[in-house]
Amino acid sequence: MLFQNITVLDENFEVRSNYYVGVRDDRIAYCSDQPPKEDFGEIYDGTNRLLIPSFYNMHSHLPMVFLRGYGENLPLMTWLQTRIFPFEAHLTDDDIYYGCLMGIAEMLRYGIGATEEMYIRQDPLGRAFAESGVKANFAQCCNGFGDEGYFDLPIYKETLETIQKYNGAADGRIRAEFSLHAEYTSTEKIVRGLAETAAKYGSSMHVHVSETAGEVQACRERHGGKSPVRYLADCGLFSVPTVAAHVVHVDDEDIAILKEYGVTVATCPKSNAKLASGICPVSALLKAGVNVAIGTDSVASNNNLNMIEEMRFFNLLQKAATLDPTVITPKETLFAATRAGALAQQRADCGLVKVGFKADLTVLELDRIYLQPEYNVLNNLIYSAAGNDVALTMVDGRVLYRDGNYPTLDIEWITAECEQRRLRILGELAGE
Amino acid sequence: MLFQNITVLDENFEVRSNYYVGVRDDRIAYCSDQPPKEDFGEIYDGTNRLLIPSFYNMHSHLPMVFLRGYGENLPLMTWLQTRIFPFEAHLTDDDIYYGCLMGIAEMLRYGIGATEEMYIRQDPLGRAFAESGVKANFAQCCNGFGDEGYFDLPIYKETLETIQKYNGAADGRIRAEFSLHAEYTSTEKIVRGLAETAAKYGSSMHVHVSETAGEVQACRERHGGKSPVRYLADCGLFSVPTVAAHVVHVDDEDIAILKEYGVTVATCPKSNAKLASGICPVSALLKAGVNVAIGTDSVASNNNLNMIEEMRFFNLLQKAATLDPTVITPKETLFAATRAGALAQQRADCGLVKVGFKADLTVLELDRIYLQPEYNVLNNLIYSAAGNDVALTMVDGRVLYRDGNYPTLDIEWITAECEQRRLRILGELAGE
Repeated sequence: MLFQNITVLDENFEVRSNYYVGVRDDRIAYCSDQPPKEDFGEIYDGTNRLLIPSFYNMHSHLPMVFLRGYGENLPLMTWLQTRIFPFEAHLTDDDIYYGCLMGIAEMLRYGIGATEEMYIRQDPLGRAFAESGVKANFAQCCNGFGDEGYFDLPIYKETLETIQKYNGAADGRIRAEFSLHAEYTSTEKIVRGLAETAAKYGSSMHVHVSETAGEVQACRERHGGKSPVRYLADCGLFSVPTVAAHVVHVDDEDIAILKEYGVTVATCPKSNAKLASGICPVSALLKAGVNVAIGTDSVASNNNLNMIEEMRFFNLLQKAATLDPTVITPKETLFAATRAGALAQQRADCGLVKVGFKADLTVLELDRIYLQPEYNVLNNLIYSAAGNDVALTMVDGRVLYRDGNYPTLDIEWITAECEQRRLRILGELAGE
Repeated sequence: MLFQNITVLDENFEVRSNYYVGVRDDRIAYCSDQPPKEDFGEIYDGTNRLLIPSFYNMHSHLPMVFLRGYGENLPLMTWLQTRIFPFEAHLTDDDIYYGCLMGIAEMLRYGIGATEEMYIRQDPLGRAFAESGVKANFAQCCNGFGDEGYFDLPIYKETLETIQKYNGAADGRIRAEFSLHAEYTSTEKIVRGLAETAAKYGSSMHVHVSETAGEVQACRERHGGKSPVRYLADCGLFSVPTVAAHVVHVDDEDIAILKEYGVTVATCPKSNAKLASGICPVSALLKAGVNVAIGTDSVASNNNLNMIEEMRFFNLLQKAATLDPTVITPKETLFAATRAGALAQQRADCGLVKVGFKADLTVLELDRIYLQPEYNVLNNLIYSAAGNDVALTMVDGRVLYRDGNYPTLDIEWITAECEQRRLRILGELAGE
């Protein structure tokens, strides 16, 4: 495909107007203000459209689409214990598979091409990611409160099997990884065993860290004054490439540790606000040189996968929290939503519009009254655009969303399956 | 028009499914789960659509559409003095008229039917509001630093003329009112004269109050320890119905005064975040019984009129700031964006879907993957919907926006006029 006469945010997020971007197989093969001599097949008219790298959603639980709006405006523990956990106890592998496909449709609708996925089962995620064409690092998160170690948990064997089956599958597009739910839902024996296994397999790690003030306080009480960041680092969890989600309540020592181990922080600004956890100190993390990416968390605590809206919260919350309007720029914001995720997932050749990079691309409509005038299209993207201005999402050179259509997903069937399964579970819950 | 088989948020914001809402002339004449016997003319198929009261944007400067994205990521004073004020100095009355029409198109696109408008000239606003069909209270804000009193300012005579010409015009749809820019841009002589004049004419008032911490501190130094709220109350400014915009930095005494005088607070969550002013203590204001409405401020500091997004910031910022997820509900949020504005504008029969009320209605598309499942459509509206899911905006029974069309606005002509005028001003600025 050749994107023609399109506006592009280039590898430095500078605006290039009337540009030509050619895609050959799974890669960007041409970028210029001059038309190419070669033929790239279909010509896509980019007039009044913007081409950017597709977004990375760096903390996600896609199958929780069933739970969007199920239990709102409740304190966190009431919400989890009376709504979320009882419902999730009824989810079968196939429920999770269909829920994941539904979530994938939503991520594509919002221009997200890659996800960092953590949920309660791994194999159905792998099936959904393999079939749909999106990029994903995904894991089943482990927890345990007893005397057992990681090697005793059923998840140990399952994860090894899934790693075997999915890691690097689809030409590296999907990767099974390891995940710890959190410090407060595990024992030290489990954390150390998990860290050891991940190191052995050279796989990456995904973990919830320091989401609430209460979590940090309780951890310090349990672990001789250590914060969750310090404790997990000491257990060896960060010895593999790690994505730490949330990271709301951290001090300078924590930030230095995150930087030292090259941990990526996946901040979830809307979810942290909605669950009243607080505001992640993004600007302090960036200042310290930590790689900061953006996650939506699940739609149960967000309640959508609208990455443009998420970028807006990411940006504006920092300004509100620091009382400094210059503390974060549109470029830093777009970087966090694109390239920072690619770097976190060790996809060095992803997350930018650049020759030789994977063709993971999102096209946005610019012909909107709320995008006029156009002093700088990047400013308009970060501060004015709507999430559903997305017209096309492409991953590895393959169109996965275009003008309301999902070439790899039977959206009507998936929607019907999800609705039927949701009603079945509600029926089961009512019968309890 | 008869809205048929539509989902409605009724006068208590409870969900009514498969409802019938009939509009006769400028009012809602029928609401029921049964079809009416009378004929209401055109039938609007409401399948998969939601009917709500149209939004009130309670703090707006519409003609600043020219300045969207013009000067970003700057400290407030640099932004104002090097970008905003120099540009605005070049605006003619006709520029303001066309800018206002462009802003009106955007407000309609986002389901806003009424605006509380403050800008630097009043007559061109009146023309735009009269022609377009939206509801508006509008004013030219006054300021002055010299020895002159309000009665000496040119704006005094102009405002009286505009009041004469527009107050209650278009069957009460538009109302000219008075406005003070702020405590820090005026003298006590001006504030007292303005208060006296507004009281004499029984007109309402619109004023910026306590937007930044610095403003409050400087006011206390200038006025014997009085906060802006205390000072303006003592000057008599709140003796007429008043909309106080921003109100970010207030203490308990201020809140008690706002309640005592029945002042409506128009909070601007996104603008206050973007300009790093802080977070308005909405929940404390609501707890004290203050009427709290929502404003977007201008698109130069927002940067759009997306009221659904604004409601989301309003709601989530309170949860983040108070660390209490139950501190504000979806019903309180929708009230602030609709009925609270109608009450502030003394439009007792506006702002709810209720028989006998003015037919100021907004229809939203529900057939969106990010609005599934539908446990409660109000939750989905506040936490999941996109601003541009608006399909129709009606004011006084007249359709002003529908599926991309603006029956009262020549949108291509307005867009072209605005672009031409913007380029003229940039040229003038370049030549200085």
